[in-house]
Amino acid sequence: MVVGSKLGALLAANPRIAWARANMALVGAVGATIGTALDGLRIGVSLHLEPKTAVLLRVLADAGADIVATGNLGTTQHDIVAALRDDGLDVFGSRSDDPRAHHANLERVIDSDPDLLLDNGADLYALVLDRGVPILGGTEETTSGAMRLRGELGAIDVPVIVINDSPLKAIVENKHAVGQSIVEGFLHVTNLMPQGRRFVVYGYGWCGRGIAHYARSVGGQVAIVEIDEIKALEAAVDGYRVLGADEAPEWGSVFITATGAEGVLAAADIEKMAEDSVLVNAGHFDREIDVPGLAEMAAAVEAEGPSIERYRLASGKSVVLLAEGRMFNLAADGARGNSIESMDLGFSLQALSLARVAVGGLDPGPQSVPDDINRQVAAAMVERMMS
Amino acid sequence: MVVGSKLGALLAANPRIAWARANMALVGAVGATIGTALDGLRIGVSLHLEPKTAVLLRVLADAGADIVATGNLGTTQHDIVAALRDDGLDVFGSRSDDPRAHHANLERVIDSDPDLLLDNGADLYALVLDRGVPILGGTEETTSGAMRLRGELGAIDVPVIVINDSPLKAIVENKHAVGQSIVEGFLHVTNLMPQGRRFVVYGYGWCGRGIAHYARSVGGQVAIVEIDEIKALEAAVDGYRVLGADEAPEWGSVFITATGAEGVLAAADIEKMAEDSVLVNAGHFDREIDVPGLAEMAAAVEAEGPSIERYRLASGKSVVLLAEGRMFNLAADGARGNSIESMDLGFSLQALSLARVAVGGLDPGPQSVPDDINRQVAAAMVERMMS
Amino acid sequence: MVVGSKLGALLAANPRIAWARANMALVGAVGATIGTALDGLRIGVSLHLEPKTAVLLRVLADAGADIVATGNLGTTQHDIVAALRDDGLDVFGSRSDDPRAHHANLERVIDSDPDLLLDNGADLYALVLDRGVPILGGTEETTSGAMRLRGELGAIDVPVIVINDSPLKAIVENKHAVGQSIVEGFLHVTNLMPQGRRFVVYGYGWCGRGIAHYARSVGGQVAIVEIDEIKALEAAVDGYRVLGADEAPEWGSVFITATGAEGVLAAADIEKMAEDSVLVNAGHFDREIDVPGLAEMAAAVEAEGPSIERYRLASGKSVVLLAEGRMFNLAADGARGNSIESMDLGFSLQALSLARVAVGGLDPGPQSVPDDINRQVAAAMVERMMS
Amino acid sequence: MVVGSKLGALLAANPRIAWARANMALVGAVGATIGTALDGLRIGVSLHLEPKTAVLLRVLADAGADIVATGNLGTTQHDIVAALRDDGLDVFGSRSDDPRAHHANLERVIDSDPDLLLDNGADLYALVLDRGVPILGGTEETTSGAMRLRGELGAIDVPVIVINDSPLKAIVENKHAVGQSIVEGFLHVTNLMPQGRRFVVYGYGWCGRGIAHYARSVGGQVAIVEIDEIKALEAAVDGYRVLGADEAPEWGSVFITATGAEGVLAAADIEKMAEDSVLVNAGHFDREIDVPGLAEMAAAVEAEGPSIERYRLASGKSVVLLAEGRMFNLAADGARGNSIESMDLGFSLQALSLARVAVGGLDPGPQSVPDDINRQVAAAMVERMMS
Repeated sequence: MVVGSKLGALLAANPRIAWARANMALVGAVGATIGTALDGLRIGVSLHLEPKTAVLLRVLADAGADIVATGNLGTTQHDIVAALRDDGLDVFGSRSDDPRAHHANLERVIDSDPDLLLDNGADLYALVLDRGVPILGGTEETTSGAMRLRGELGAIDVPVIVINDSPLKAIVENKHAVGQSIVEGFLHVTNLMPQGRRFVVYGYGWCGRGIAHYARSVGGQVAIVEIDEIKALEAAVDGYRVLGADEAPEWGSVFITATGAEGVLAAADIEKMAEDSVLVNAGHFDREIDVPGLAEMAAAVEAEGPSIERYRLASGKSVVLLAEGRMFNLAADGARGNSIESMDLGFSLQALSLARVAVGGLDPGPQSVPDDINRQVAAAMVERMMS
Repeated sequence: MVVGSKLGALLAANPRIAWARANMALVGAVGATIGTALDGLRIGVSLHLEPKTAVLLRVLADAGADIVATGNLGTTQHDIVAALRDDGLDVFGSRSDDPRAHHANLERVIDSDPDLLLDNGADLYALVLDRGVPILGGTEETTSGAMRLRGELGAIDVPVIVINDSPLKAIVENKHAVGQSIVEGFLHVTNLMPQGRRFVVYGYGWCGRGIAHYARSVGGQVAIVEIDEIKALEAAVDGYRVLGADEAPEWGSVFITATGAEGVLAAADIEKMAEDSVLVNAGHFDREIDVPGLAEMAAAVEAEGPSIERYRLASGKSVVLLAEGRMFNLAADGARGNSIESMDLGFSLQALSLARVAVGGLDPGPQSVPDDINRQVAAAMVERMMS
Repeated sequence: MVVGSKLGALLAANPRIAWARANMALVGAVGATIGTALDGLRIGVSLHLEPKTAVLLRVLADAGADIVATGNLGTTQHDIVAALRDDGLDVFGSRSDDPRAHHANLERVIDSDPDLLLDNGADLYALVLDRGVPILGGTEETTSGAMRLRGELGAIDVPVIVINDSPLKAIVENKHAVGQSIVEGFLHVTNLMPQGRRFVVYGYGWCGRGIAHYARSVGGQVAIVEIDEIKALEAAVDGYRVLGADEAPEWGSVFITATGAEGVLAAADIEKMAEDSVLVNAGHFDREIDVPGLAEMAAAVEAEGPSIERYRLASGKSVVLLAEGRMFNLAADGARGNSIESMDLGFSLQALSLARVAVGGLDPGPQSVPDDINRQVAAAMVERMMS
Repeated sequence: MVVGSKLGALLAANPRIAWARANMALVGAVGATIGTALDGLRIGVSLHLEPKTAVLLRVLADAGADIVATGNLGTTQHDIVAALRDDGLDVFGSRSDDPRAHHANLERVIDSDPDLLLDNGADLYALVLDRGVPILGGTEETTSGAMRLRGELGAIDVPVIVINDSPLKAIVENKHAVGQSIVEGFLHVTNLMPQGRRFVVYGYGWCGRGIAHYARSVGGQVAIVEIDEIKALEAAVDGYRVLGADEAPEWGSVFITATGAEGVLAAADIEKMAEDSVLVNAGHFDREIDVPGLAEMAAAVEAEGPSIERYRLASGKSVVLLAEGRMFNLAADGARGNSIESMDLGFSLQALSLARVAVGGLDPGPQSVPDDINRQVAAAMVERMMS
């Protein structure tokens, strides 16, 4: 671990940033690749402000970029903002910002006349398009932001690289990091033994297969519910029981949704489950489990621990909902999200993609991470893992 | 297991066909789907003639088709030909046919004026195109046959469904059935203990990842050599050691090629391996291991059992080559090839695709298995596995 | 879940007890077996006072026993004491008790003239033997308490059943519950990705093999250091790499001790490890890693998060110690200890053993859990897991 | 692999012995440990005569012993006898020997006035005790032979080391080698896909847990039937479904017995199974499955391949019995028995134990392998596996 003098100060200021930095070897090494590509350019940023993103911002600043950054709504960590500011970066926002204050922060980023954007959900791009602010282009972290850029926001005439489209993210983050953090979080929050439990995983996409894999690895019995016939066959030959959505409620004892769809677990399904069944949502949105419907069925709701609520149904049965049905590996008590290394991978793609936009020569519009960047980062990660 | 009267006779005639049929529930059930689509049509066939294909031909005949069939060069099983003939099908060819006799058999199939072809390697299509014989279309089993149909043979103006392009084959056959049969075959042929052995798998495509998975499952240490950076990363996060092609020879003790490429294990690599290293080829062609180069290096070659040969190198070291470097799960002593159920899947795709061509309405030219057929067969297989 | 009226009150009073109770089906069902065996008897208790033990005490009280209980030094949870008191049990002690106050609590238990003891470390037995207080007998949770009863404390002339000697504890608690909680805790505290990490597990006893199993299950590379030749062979045929104590420091990146011995990881071993190596102790005592020796070598120690400390060695290298080298699955930030069900098993053994002592007929002295109780509890747990 | 001149001749004569020898590093290295302990002593041998035992006999002869050997009833391999004779050893017997001829062979061994015996089933010891022939002692391979020596045969006044009592055999041979060979053999003989199959393993002793482990490893669903409550709990926390003997027949699709008991699968159980169920016996004796009872129920029995027989029950259902219910990993078509390395381990114990008896100082009577020999062989095997 070789750290420059600036990053050294940041390390000293915040132990959580220090720990993240020590395990983010990829992003720590991109500086050499970027060279002077970002030198003197201003990057407008809207991102969850937590230790791992702090490392990314510091790396970009060390590469000569001028950072103007704010957080996402409701997730900004105060100590991280303070550490970045102490370190000389122009960062603002707080967890308590209301939508109006948050919007003002976004405007303040745009007011700084950024050359590039590093956005998460396309809020900055929306402002740029709305106002006609000239930029060189930038990156967008999320698929939903990319959808806005391809749809409602109208055509953008500069290159925007969409990080989440990279196959590396599917492999490392969706399958392994999400799978691990969901199963680890289940064990941590509930303190239950996985053996003898019957886990039903809804969806056998990247996230679902990761969850299924780790639930089985720790000794659980696992069944898959999947409406796509070909993915269902994959689950079956991967050794899982495959159940119809109608059979699963009576079979399982833990139910984990990872489909991206709405109302996967309806109130009628929950009514059929056994006493003490546990409900977990691993999807991005909190609508996979019909929590309002469940609440309506319930005669009482009792907390039985952090992120654990027992719903006593009018029928006399009770089921347990974890983390209010919100994305479990981020929303649960004590949750730390995906592993540091999986974020390190994504942020390396971010930094290299920003530099590529700065260098120029790309077609306008939202686009995938260039293949050579994917391959470069993949090779760097393999090398690090095997060292 | 409900069997019609004709199939019953076949069962009585040959126990190996009976065993295959009892475990080929999918192909056994396609008759109901096909209905009268094949009734009265003549199907010209060129296929390995062994118990599983016998079941397919009988099912097509039971659906009303008129079968005229010959085998592939060098793989025809005499008792199967006899059983099919006794059962009233027009089948000919023998294992001892030389290329000239084999070509005559293919011509005899075409001389019968088939309406449809069920081909394996595009030899029948080549004749049809050469002679200008009119057909409705047909199926082609292999990728290499499909390449001929898209290239050297010139444009074909009838629909030809390419079975091997189906995603179901990749999942069920390439990953699981090949992986299992290679590892099972290794244990069977060598009688060695996998624990403590260091398996190097070359290639992390569908076959390679299946082999790696099963080698690890039975207790082996497994490393992957893969030149594609993204697949290499997948191997690493799947928990495997990833090695460079230059490091692997000194690390491993068993080397399995599954790349599709030529000369993966060159003589120079083999020279670097430890005494007693074992070499296995899982790829379709016998050129992944440079056997001629190995033979040239060898001072002596000694058989140490069926499919086991020790090459004593001039350097004083010796290594062991299994099944002469030919496709191990088919060529090894006692090898039975892929599991019956994985073949059942492929043959269901065959039968349904032939019926689809017969029904008409498809575009001309080589094409993938229609999506609805893939989904229908996938759903049927899941249902059978879970019943 | 059927709960009696008394337990219902306790449930209402404390959500964590409610959650534990809902998942402690075995102890919840022992009342029927115990019948009136404990009716009217006073049980003197010294035990960690946390939610799971609260359930045990409540069950014993529901069976008619009169409970007088205090905690162990430094682990008493205030809200649990309060809940039990509100519920009418005679419970006292607090986390802040110093050794003198703790001793006074123990004396207060003995002063109540208990008929039976439920002890954890033999502190109550020591007082009884010292004072010559007449009791019927009781149970002792720990192996170290049993050693005191077989040694320094002199002969005890009443039956004392030693719970930790039961084979059920080795299987369920030591292997699976400890293994899971150590690996889960590692992921939780560090937020690191297990793939690509090289875990060295010291000791292949029950705990070590559980840790190794779960570390491998989540994708880690695992090696074992074990001085017993036969256990080392077991590790090898279980598919692990087996390393000598001299080779391990240079091979690994995470080091987990589970031997029961002292000084397993000496300062000289740590000096040989790679930068960023992580040290974890899973053993009962905090002396398996030589923390004083490590501190002496260190030029600086910096916290990088809860339970994470980086030791910067004078040599310029740095290593990371988790939870100060104390028993990781109990001492780490947010640690919840072994799974509820594994504790449920042990507490069922406790309750049934106390009833057996009360019924009489046992030989005097420390002794194993009667075989029929082991079998009864094992069968009940299997039935619950499969239901 | 360094081979002496005598062994070299043997290698040249028989390729199967060469292959075994190349993978029997432990027995190949015991000569150095034995030194002159066996020099000039005559060893009377009764053992399965196949390639691995040939290596053992050659190693003993190279250590200076004079070998007089015959086979066990019905298992003698002609080419191995021939190779050993060509190599100068006094070996006799053939596969076709009837009990009378076999007994004559045993007498011929004893007539040679051996100093030591290497026996398998205590037939030689029976003769020695009957005739009062003086010997120094020897070894006995099997548990059943040891039972005869402790019971019916009366007291023996010389030391006899019982090899099968060694914990190394349980670990390496019973758990791993048997488990692997049963599952590998199932795949090989049936050519079926394990996924989607429901394997019921009867007995969770060493063999049963090995079989269960490997059946699950290759993708099967696995349930355990076990009457011992504590082993059943172990199976449950190892992540298996545990079924009662009454539930299992209706649940499973493949049934494997590994209990050592008689009539585990009775005709009444088989009657309850689903069509196409497959029955396999992994136990030493062919009485775990009630084959006579099954035959009585059957209207017809049809071979469907080597080691595959379909029993058509009068009820209209049919089930499949593999290898006639005899010990599957030895009796099935093409079966090669336990892995070479697992036999190498046992034969190292044999050779070192014989030398220990020769050196003298042991108590008389049947006894376990000395602890130091177990540890020495365990350490040697770990070293070989890790090299």
